[in-house]
Amino acid sequence: MACNGAREPLLTRVADCTPANNNSNRCGPNRRRIRRVRSAPLAEFVPKDINGDAPLPRSPSIFGNLHPSFRKVAIFLTVYLGVGTLCFYIVRNQISGKKTNGILDAAYFCVVTMTTVGYGDLVPNSVLAKLLACSFVFMGMALVGLVLSKAADYLVEKQETMLVKALHKHKRVGQTEIIKEAETHRVRYKLYTVSFLLVVLISSGTIFLATVEKLDPVDAFYCVCSTITTLGYGDQSFSTEVGRIFAGFWILAGTVCVAQFFLYMAELNTENRRRALVKWVLTRKMTNVDLEAADLNEDGVVDAAEFIIYKLKEMGKISQEDISLVMEEFEDLDVDQSGTLSASDLILGQSTET
Amino acid sequence: MACNGAREPLLTRVADCTPANNNSNRCGPNRRRIRRVRSAPLAEFVPKDINGDAPLPRSPSIFGNLHPSFRKVAIFLTVYLGVGTLCFYIVRNQISGKKTNGILDAAYFCVVTMTTVGYGDLVPNSVLAKLLACSFVFMGMALVGLVLSKAADYLVEKQETMLVKALHKHKRVGQTEIIKEAETHRVRYKLYTVSFLLVVLISSGTIFLATVEKLDPVDAFYCVCSTITTLGYGDQSFSTEVGRIFAGFWILAGTVCVAQFFLYMAELNTENRRRALVKWVLTRKMTNVDLEAADLNEDGVVDAAEFIIYKLKEMGKISQEDISLVMEEFEDLDVDQSGTLSASDLILGQSTET
Repeated sequence: MACNGAREPLLTRVADCTPANNNSNRCGPNRRRIRRVRSAPLAEFVPKDINGDAPLPRSPSIFGNLHPSFRKVAIFLTVYLGVGTLCFYIVRNQISGKKTNGILDAAYFCVVTMTTVGYGDLVPNSVLAKLLACSFVFMGMALVGLVLSKAADYLVEKQETMLVKALHKHKRVGQTEIIKEAETHRVRYKLYTVSFLLVVLISSGTIFLATVEKLDPVDAFYCVCSTITTLGYGDQSFSTEVGRIFAGFWILAGTVCVAQFFLYMAELNTENRRRALVKWVLTRKMTNVDLEAADLNEDGVVDAAEFIIYKLKEMGKISQEDISLVMEEFEDLDVDQSGTLSASDLILGQSTET
Repeated sequence: MACNGAREPLLTRVADCTPANNNSNRCGPNRRRIRRVRSAPLAEFVPKDINGDAPLPRSPSIFGNLHPSFRKVAIFLTVYLGVGTLCFYIVRNQISGKKTNGILDAAYFCVVTMTTVGYGDLVPNSVLAKLLACSFVFMGMALVGLVLSKAADYLVEKQETMLVKALHKHKRVGQTEIIKEAETHRVRYKLYTVSFLLVVLISSGTIFLATVEKLDPVDAFYCVCSTITTLGYGDQSFSTEVGRIFAGFWILAGTVCVAQFFLYMAELNTENRRRALVKWVLTRKMTNVDLEAADLNEDGVVDAAEFIIYKLKEMGKISQEDISLVMEEFEDLDVDQSGTLSASDLILGQSTET
């Protein structure tokens, strides 16, 4: 039961930690101002994306040199397109429509199917080919939705800092300010980046369709819109060999880009509402009822940590369930039941274990 | 500077709060065991969905009796489909393909476009109609992605408890346990619910296409898959009047259902990873370094609230930015700079304001 009330920093006074120190209280001259919680040692373990997806340790693979997101994407995409192209090449006689080169058409059909564009310029006409298309479209949706979306998000985030830098070129601001600006308005800059990419993709697609596929400019633009939204009416599509090679890459980029655009729109909306809520929670008046509710250890006052928990709970960042989970762990660790953890609790805990 | 160290519950001792109470310390016989943070008064203000979307106060409307989510959806959907059907009805002579009834075809074309199915059985063939279709598909995507998805999520959540109840019918469990079970595995049960709905929609669609549209069973199933995934090759589609009425509702339900299915798959994946991370954070050994890092107010010991903040930060639930924001507010409120908030701080704060 030693040193429960010790008021000195732990590491310097662990040796002479005695009950005598209990009398020093919060009003004493040695009291320091509150400081920040030092960085938890697991910072790189902590999820950064909106889905809170924590990267768990991975086993090495042939795509070892790539960033984890890209390694995963590269593996999935290669397997999917490889198997898909092979399957549709084998059943190429059971697919009817405008044909060019066997392998090329199979790959093009595979991309048009996985992105759910589905022009209908090539359609399966046997039971086998139809069921194959059905299974590939479901797998393709999962691949685009679950894997490509994350990779795209990572790419956009990478280019974001460049954009912020470019936007602030005329002002003389340091690297730190740029990073801070990008952090605070992350979603907004992501939306700008993806909008810029979208303009590039729409223009390049329209120009390509007008020049290579010889479409009327309005038809070219209409085909671009119908493709990137995955609408794919099919009255206008890629019918030349060169066109289908271009389409393979362009459709994938375009559809993912539009999807990310809508994703960021939703995120921005959510973030704005959250900001409004945070502002409201932080500026509203504290009352005695709040003080009592926030007083976690019932010592009659609310210290900084208790205040933080109360406010973050109000903001909806943490739930009662989160708090209860950690509290259970705390009560296990607090071997001497003093209501606080100190070096002696850790030592006592180790000795009870052994 | 009075009563910074008061150790009694606030509301009972506010009157006789004097510096004399400062001497009572954490080891005293009056110390209580830690209790839960009482519910913040803003519980209903706190976002519950994964997007953290907080419902802000709304102005009354003609859809006033509906739940906010549905009111919004009903308004958007009515306006979109109304304007869309009207527009495409006006340009009906500039749309070519298999036609039935003018208004019906316009509404059917509108749904096929907004869900990005785009069969191509009806295609715009003038510049005006093409540009109209382009603008409607973008608005439709936004509507389905941003609005319908949330309404669907709300509906699924409502039906979830019913499902959990049905699954536990043979066991004698109380209402509370059912709710708790549903809370803990919310995403999993959402996925079950949506899977069940998907089976119903796929079966009903296949049966309808086989009986009313007289399609071969394989073709009917193929058309169902091609529709709900928004692929819409267009070699098989709804060509009768009755078929297109059914299609209007069924396509909307089917495409939203498949989208939710993939959304919940992604959520479940994220939740499982998060659970693994939470378990890892809670079971890993605390060291002296952790104790020192967690000690927010540098008093040499880690109390419950500090421990909670440290662990939640490790879990990635809260960030340093969140903590800093609230700390600023805390330091403003702590008028007497005692490092704790008490009733006297509130009174002092009010008097400085006035």
